Order: sequence, then C-alpha cells, then structure tokens
Amino acid sequence: MSEGLDAKALWSISYGLYVVSSRSGEGRLNGQIANSVFQVTSEPPQVAAAINKGNLTHEYIEESGVFAVSVLSQDVTMKFIGLFGFRSGREVDKLSQARYMPGATGVPVVLDYSVSFIEAEVVGSLDVGTHTIFVGRVVAGRVIGGGRPLTYAEYHELKKGKAPKAAPTYRG
Amino acid sequence: MSEGLDAKALWSISYGLYVVSSRSGEGRLNGQIANSVFQVTSEPPQVAAAINKGNLTHEYIEESGVFAVSVLSQDVTMKFIGLFGFRSGREVDKLSQARYMPGATGVPVVLDYSVSFIEAEVVGSLDVGTHTIFVGRVVAGRVIGGGRPLTYAEYHELKKGKAPKAAPTYRG
Repeated sequence: MSEGLDAKALWSISYGLYVVSSRSGEGRLNGQIANSVFQVTSEPPQVAAAINKGNLTHEYIEESGVFAVSVLSQDVTMKFIGLFGFRSGREVDKLSQARYMPGATGVPVVLDYSVSFIEAEVVGSLDVGTHTIFVGRVVAGRVIGGGRPLTYAEYHELKKGKAPKAAPTYRG
Repeated sequence: MSEGLDAKALWSISYGLYVVSSRSGEGRLNGQIANSVFQVTSEPPQVAAAINKGNLTHEYIEESGVFAVSVLSQDVTMKFIGLFGFRSGREVDKLSQARYMPGATGVPVVLDYSVSFIEAEVVGSLDVGTHTIFVGRVVAGRVIGGGRPLTYAEYHELKKGKAPKAAPTYRG
C-alpha cells in the first residue's frame, strides 16, 4: 500500500449490497454477495460487477456469459448474508436454501430480501488482478417488492457486518 | 431497451457522488461530477470510474493517465453540483471557482464539500460504448474533513437532483 494513502479514504465510497448469481455451462447454480455493482451506461443499459477470481460465481459467469444481480433490502438477515457472502458454493448448495426463479437467461434470480433484480449478458470484461470486472448488457430487470436498498454503510453500521477476504473492499 | 426491463430496477443500485478530476498533457485542469466510482480490489487498492467519452475530463484522463476522486459530503450545494455536473470544462474554468490542491500526480484535488479524496494512476480501461471504465491504482488518499458521504439516493431525494444526459444513470 502506498505511504501517501490512508485506507480510510476508500471507506467513504458508497455501495449497495447485492447477490450476483450465475450458472455453469452444465446448469449448476450459484450466487454470492457483492458490493461492487454499478450501472456504466444508460443507452444501452449496461452494468458492471467486480468479482473475485477465486469465487465459484466467477467461474460460472465465465462459462455461461450471463449473470443476475439482486438488490438486497434493508431487512436482509445476517443469516442470509452469511450463507451467500461467507460460504463457498463449492461446499454448500446455496440456492437450495433460497427462493429464486429461473431468469430469461437461465440464471437463478434470487428473490429473498430483494428490492429488484437485473439480468445481464456479458459483453466485456477487464482483468484487474485479484478480480475481474464483468460488464453486462441488461436484458431484463424488475422491481420485485417493497423495501429500500441496503447501503454498504448501513450494512457496516446497522448490521455490524464485515467484508470477507475476497471482497474488493476487504479491510485487512 | 429490452422489453423485459423495467428501468426502475436499475434505480435501486446505490452510489455516492464524486468529483473526478484530471489534467491535460499541457497541465490544464478540469473535473466533473460522477456517481459511478467504486473500489475493485483491495490488494493492491484500485478504483474504477465510468466516464462519458464526450466529457473533457475523459480527454484529460486519457492524456495524463491520472485522476483524483473527491467524495462529496451531504452538505454539498446544488450550486457546486451545477458547476461541476452540468457545465462543460470547455466553456468554463471550473477549478478557478473551487478550492483545490495539487495532488502527488499533478491532478487538482478538489477540497470543497469533500469527505475524502483518492488519487489514482490508470492501469487499465474498458470501452463500454458511450463511456470508458478507467481503472486506477490508488497512489494517495486521505480523509479531509468531517461530514458524511452523500449517497446518490439522498441527492435525488433530499436535493431533488437530476442526472445530466452524459451520466451512466441518465433517466431519459
């Protein structure tokens, strides 16, 4: 880390909290918590997500070229975040413990604690070291229920949540 | 836009509000409001920003390969956002109307209404159509003052703010 950098400067960047989900080439399903999701263009609508290369969801997005983003609401439970954010899909079948629907692209769209969802087809990606930024053209999306999106700051403050080691915002 | 897409689904993605600033090859200075800024890796710390290709700041970042991000606080004024977000640096010398300091990389680090700043050197970029995603390795950064980061939702709700046409999140 650079000597001129106080890491706290990075902590004031704002995010939401999301489940990014995908499927393997053979149709296996997985999803993970992510905070680094944002819209990058409006015409056409495209979104970007930074995903850790070691994660199963990364493998699945590379295989299938599609992913979904569920925007988590303020009523999300730590149990849910524990399952999707701190367990690996290589060890536990996360989707068997969640409510989801098959999306237009065949990805599992997670519905639990979700304000809305977005489905995207990968049109570009950028290798940034430990993570890949996947850029997807939005092919579907809908507001699901009520509730307000949980911000990452609220997750830290209200839920006393932490970032796992694989997160772009991990505080070592 | 896809028929399966309700654009409101995209509106629940969370952002902050930032000034992204840079300098030209000849040392001219500019900055603009951006919401699409996020950290993409922690080791090493890297940030990404989606910048409209038509903007002067885009030209400057391409020329100099460096940019700064100032995280705007909740007390930012609509006058300030009007200057940096809705005027072009081709028509007005924005920095002459703001408080800033020269950063380690020579970029102007805007201090007005800023919770913290981050300075970065471009290490990669991705063409996503109307915008470019610039990825920068963070070389400096500090918490400047007090205040809480303004979220994009608060900007819309509290400040009744709109997105300009060049924004990734423009609502046509």
